[in-house]
Amino acid sequence: MLLSEIAKYLNLELKGEDKEIRGVNTLEAAKKDELSFLANPKYVPHLKTTKAGAVVVSSEFASQVSSALISSNPYFDFARVVQLFARPQGTFRGISELAFIHSTAQIDPTVTVYPFVYIGEGVKIGANTVIFSGSYIGERVEIGEQCTIYPNVSLLCDTKIGNNVIIHAGTVLGSDGFGFAQGQSGLEKFPQIGKVVVEDNVEIGANTTIDRAAIGETKIGAGTKIDNLVQIAHNVQVGENSIIVAQVGISGSTVLGKQVILGGQVGIAGHLHLGDGCRVAAQSGVGKDIPPQTDVGGTPSMPHKTFLRSSLILPKLPELYKKIKKLEEKVKELETKVQE
Amino acid sequence: MLLSEIAKYLNLELKGEDKEIRGVNTLEAAKKDELSFLANPKYVPHLKTTKAGAVVVSSEFASQVSSALISSNPYFDFARVVQLFARPQGTFRGISELAFIHSTAQIDPTVTVYPFVYIGEGVKIGANTVIFSGSYIGERVEIGEQCTIYPNVSLLCDTKIGNNVIIHAGTVLGSDGFGFAQGQSGLEKFPQIGKVVVEDNVEIGANTTIDRAAIGETKIGAGTKIDNLVQIAHNVQVGENSIIVAQVGISGSTVLGKQVILGGQVGIAGHLHLGDGCRVAAQSGVGKDIPPQTDVGGTPSMPHKTFLRSSLILPKLPELYKKIKKLEEKVKELETKVQE
Amino acid sequence: MLLSEIAKYLNLELKGEDKEIRGVNTLEAAKKDELSFLANPKYVPHLKTTKAGAVVVSSEFASQVSSALISSNPYFDFARVVQLFARPQGTFRGISELAFIHSTAQIDPTVTVYPFVYIGEGVKIGANTVIFSGSYIGERVEIGEQCTIYPNVSLLCDTKIGNNVIIHAGTVLGSDGFGFAQGQSGLEKFPQIGKVVVEDNVEIGANTTIDRAAIGETKIGAGTKIDNLVQIAHNVQVGENSIIVAQVGISGSTVLGKQVILGGQVGIAGHLHLGDGCRVAAQSGVGKDIPPQTDVGGTPSMPHKTFLRSSLILPKLPELYKKIKKLEEKVKELETKVQE
Repeated sequence: MLLSEIAKYLNLELKGEDKEIRGVNTLEAAKKDELSFLANPKYVPHLKTTKAGAVVVSSEFASQVSSALISSNPYFDFARVVQLFARPQGTFRGISELAFIHSTAQIDPTVTVYPFVYIGEGVKIGANTVIFSGSYIGERVEIGEQCTIYPNVSLLCDTKIGNNVIIHAGTVLGSDGFGFAQGQSGLEKFPQIGKVVVEDNVEIGANTTIDRAAIGETKIGAGTKIDNLVQIAHNVQVGENSIIVAQVGISGSTVLGKQVILGGQVGIAGHLHLGDGCRVAAQSGVGKDIPPQTDVGGTPSMPHKTFLRSSLILPKLPELYKKIKKLEEKVKELETKVQE
Repeated sequence: MLLSEIAKYLNLELKGEDKEIRGVNTLEAAKKDELSFLANPKYVPHLKTTKAGAVVVSSEFASQVSSALISSNPYFDFARVVQLFARPQGTFRGISELAFIHSTAQIDPTVTVYPFVYIGEGVKIGANTVIFSGSYIGERVEIGEQCTIYPNVSLLCDTKIGNNVIIHAGTVLGSDGFGFAQGQSGLEKFPQIGKVVVEDNVEIGANTTIDRAAIGETKIGAGTKIDNLVQIAHNVQVGENSIIVAQVGISGSTVLGKQVILGGQVGIAGHLHLGDGCRVAAQSGVGKDIPPQTDVGGTPSMPHKTFLRSSLILPKLPELYKKIKKLEEKVKELETKVQE
Repeated sequence: MLLSEIAKYLNLELKGEDKEIRGVNTLEAAKKDELSFLANPKYVPHLKTTKAGAVVVSSEFASQVSSALISSNPYFDFARVVQLFARPQGTFRGISELAFIHSTAQIDPTVTVYPFVYIGEGVKIGANTVIFSGSYIGERVEIGEQCTIYPNVSLLCDTKIGNNVIIHAGTVLGSDGFGFAQGQSGLEKFPQIGKVVVEDNVEIGANTTIDRAAIGETKIGAGTKIDNLVQIAHNVQVGENSIIVAQVGISGSTVLGKQVILGGQVGIAGHLHLGDGCRVAAQSGVGKDIPPQTDVGGTPSMPHKTFLRSSLILPKLPELYKKIKKLEEKVKELETKVQE
C-alpha cells in the first residue's frame, strides 16, 4: 500500500517522499518498508535511529524523518492504520457439530460457534458474534451482535451482553458473589440470584471475574474497558467509558461514575461511591467515597498531590526519627540552661 | 407466597398487614410485591423511600415499614428466604455422552456430568454432585456428595474434595507449587508430588489457584470460604471456617488457624503461623507470625489500631517534615542566643 | 530402593546405617521408611523429633540423625531424589479422536492430545509434547518438544513456545494487550497484532495472563519461572532465568534483565528498565528504572535497606507526631523565656 494512500485514508498530510508500506512496527524494530509512530515523548530519541520508512508524528517532529504523516493524535491515527494490517483471530466459521447447543437456544445463522462450546437453555446470540472453543454459555444468557467471546470463557446463567463486546479467554461472568451470613452453626451461604449486565462496546480482559449480583444487577457501563485478572464483586456498578487496569479489585455494591480510571492493583472497599472522572493511582487502597473529578493515591487513599509529597518523605523516615531524637535532647539541654 | 407463610417458615414475628410476596429485592429496587431486608445501618434512610411490600428488620426499625418480619439477624434470615426464590444454576441432567470418562472411574448414578468434561483414571465422584462443561478431573481425584464443580475448573491428580463443596468457574486445584532449587546450571524444578485436600462445606471462588503440596498436603479446612482470584501456595494449611477475600496471596507452608479473616489483596509470606481468629485488613502484607485473636493491618503489618493511627499521619508527612526543619532552625537560634 | 543406592545416584556420602527407602516426605510427616531433608534453618529443631529413616543434610547436622546423606545443597539434591518417586500427571496417551485438529496442523506422532483440545490452522507441535483437555491452540501457534500444556490453557494466534516449557492450567497467552486511543467519540481499540514468544525451559503457573504485543513481541526469556495469577502486559520483555512470584503485575513495554526476582504481588509501571539481578520485595510498587544488582522494596520502591528501616518507623508515626507537637510547645516556651 502506498504511503499516500494511507495518508488519504487517515485524512492526514504527507510530508516527504511517497513509498510502498508493507507493515507497521515500533520505531526500534521497524524496517524501511514499515510505518511507525511517535506518541510517548520518551521515545523521541528513537526518531534519529529508526529505520522506519515513514512515521506518524505531530508537526513539530516532522522534519526529523524522511517521510511523515502529520497528526495531532498520532497514537489514535496509528491505531487506525494498524487495523489495515491486522489479521483476524480465529479462522473457524459456522456452527460446529462438536458444540453442544440446547434445542431452545436462538442463535443467529451468522454466528460462529467453535467446537466444545456449551450453549444452555433459552440462550440468545445476535448476528456475527463468535464464540471460541471451550466457552460455557449458561441458561438464558443473551449476547448481542458483533461480539467476540474468546476460548474457555464462562458466562453463568442470566448474564446479559450488549453489542460489540469483547471478552478475552478464561474470564468468568456471573459466578456467585461472596456473601455469607453468620448463623449459629457457622457461615451460611446467602443465595446469589442476581445477574451480570454488560453494555455495548465493553472489552473485558483475560481471566477476569465479575460476580452476579446477590439480588438485582452487577453492571458494566457502555464503552468501559477492563484489563486482565480484575475482580468485580456482586452488585458493583461501573459507569460508562471507564478504564480498569489489571488486577484491580472492587468490593461489593460499590458504584463507579463515568470515565473513572483505576490504575493496576487498586483495591476499592465495598458500598462506596466514586464520582465521574475520578482517577486512582496504581496499588492504592480506597476506603472512602471519592468526589467527582478527583485524583487520589496511596493506602489509605489521599489526594494525589499529597500522596506524591508524602511518598517522598517515606524513605526519609529513619532520618526524621533521628532528627526528632536529637531535637528532644537539645531542647532538654536548652531547658536546663534556661532554667539556671 | 403469603408473607405470613414466610414468617412461619422463618419462625419470625410478622408485624403489620399480610400480603402476597412474589420475589425478593434490595430496599432501593424492591416493588410492592417484593420482600426486602435491612442489615447494613448505612441503608436505614432507604426505609423511608422503599416500595418493598415487607422488610426483614430488627425490632427497632419495625415501626418504619408497613409490614415487617422481626429478626435479630436480618441478613441471615433474609438469606434463607432468598433460597425460596432462587433458580438453580444449570438445567442439564445425567451423564453426557459428549464427556470423556475413563473406564476405571467410579461415578455415582445420580451425578451430573456435562458435555466436554474429562474424567481420568481412578476418579471417584459421590452422589448428586454436578460437574459443569469443560472441567478436567485428573487421575485419582475424589469428589464427595452434593458438590458443584462449575465450568472450566481443573482438578489435577490426587485432589480430594469433601461433601457439599462448591468450586466456581475457571478455578485450578492441584497445579504444581512454585519450587525450584538453585543448581549449578540454573534453576531446577523441585518435583511437586503432594496433593490438595478440601474438606466439607468449603466454597472456592472463580479463577482461584490452589497448588498441590511439594510433599504431603495443601489443606483447606471445613466450612472455609475463599473468594475469586486467590492464590494459595503449596503446603499451606487453612483452618476451619476461615474467610479469604478476593486476590489474597498466601505463600508456601504458611498455616492459618480457625476462623481467620483475610481482607482483599492481602499478602502473607511463607512459613508463618496465623493464630485462630486473626483478622488482617485489606491490602496488608504479613511477614511475621500473628498470635490468635489479633487484628493487624498495613505493610508490613502492625496492630490494627496502630495501623489506623499511623495511616492518619501519612498524609501529614510533608507538613511534619517542614515542622521538623523549622524546629531545627529555631533550636539552633535558641542555642546561639542561650550561648551568648 | 536402598539408601545406599540413592546415595550412589546422587553421588553423596552416606553416614550411618543403610536401609530400605519407600518414599520421601517432610521432617514432620516422614515415616521410618521415608527419606527427608533439611534446607531451611527454621526446621532444625525437627531433626530431634523426626521419624524419617534418613535425611539429606549438610555435614554439620549429620550427627543428629541415624542415617544422613551429606550434601552441600540439600534442597537441590533432595529435589533430584523426589523425582525418583514422582508419578507423572496424566495417563492419557495418543491423539484423541475427541479433539479438533485442523487439517493443516503439523503434529509430531509422539505428541499427546487430550479430548476437547482445539488445534487451529497452521499449528506446529514438536515431539513428546502433551496438550491436556480443554486447551485452545490458535492459528500458527508453534510449540516445541517436551512441553506440557495443562488443561484449559488458551494460546492465542502466533504464540511461539520453545522446548521443555510447562504451562499450568487456565493460563492465557496471546490475549490482546490493553491499548486504547482516545478519539473524539470515546476510546478506540488499538489493534494488537504482535505475538508472545516463550523461550526454552520456561515454567508458567496457573491462571496467569501474558498479552500479545501491540506490535512485535512480548517475550519470556529462557529458564524463567513465573508463578500463578501473574499479569504480563503487551511488549514486556522478561530476561533469562528470572523468577516472578504469584500475583505480580508488569505493565506494558517494561524490560526486565536476567535473573531478576520479583516477590509476590509486586506491581511494575510501564516503559521501565529493571537491570540484571534486581530483586524487588513482595507487594512493592516500582515506578522508576532500577539499576542492575539492586534490591528495592516499598511503594513507591526505594533501596531495600531504606525500606526496612522506614518500615520500622511507620508504626511509630503517631508517637512521632505527638513528640513534634510537644517539641513545638517547648520551643515556643523557650523562645518566650529567652526573649524575656
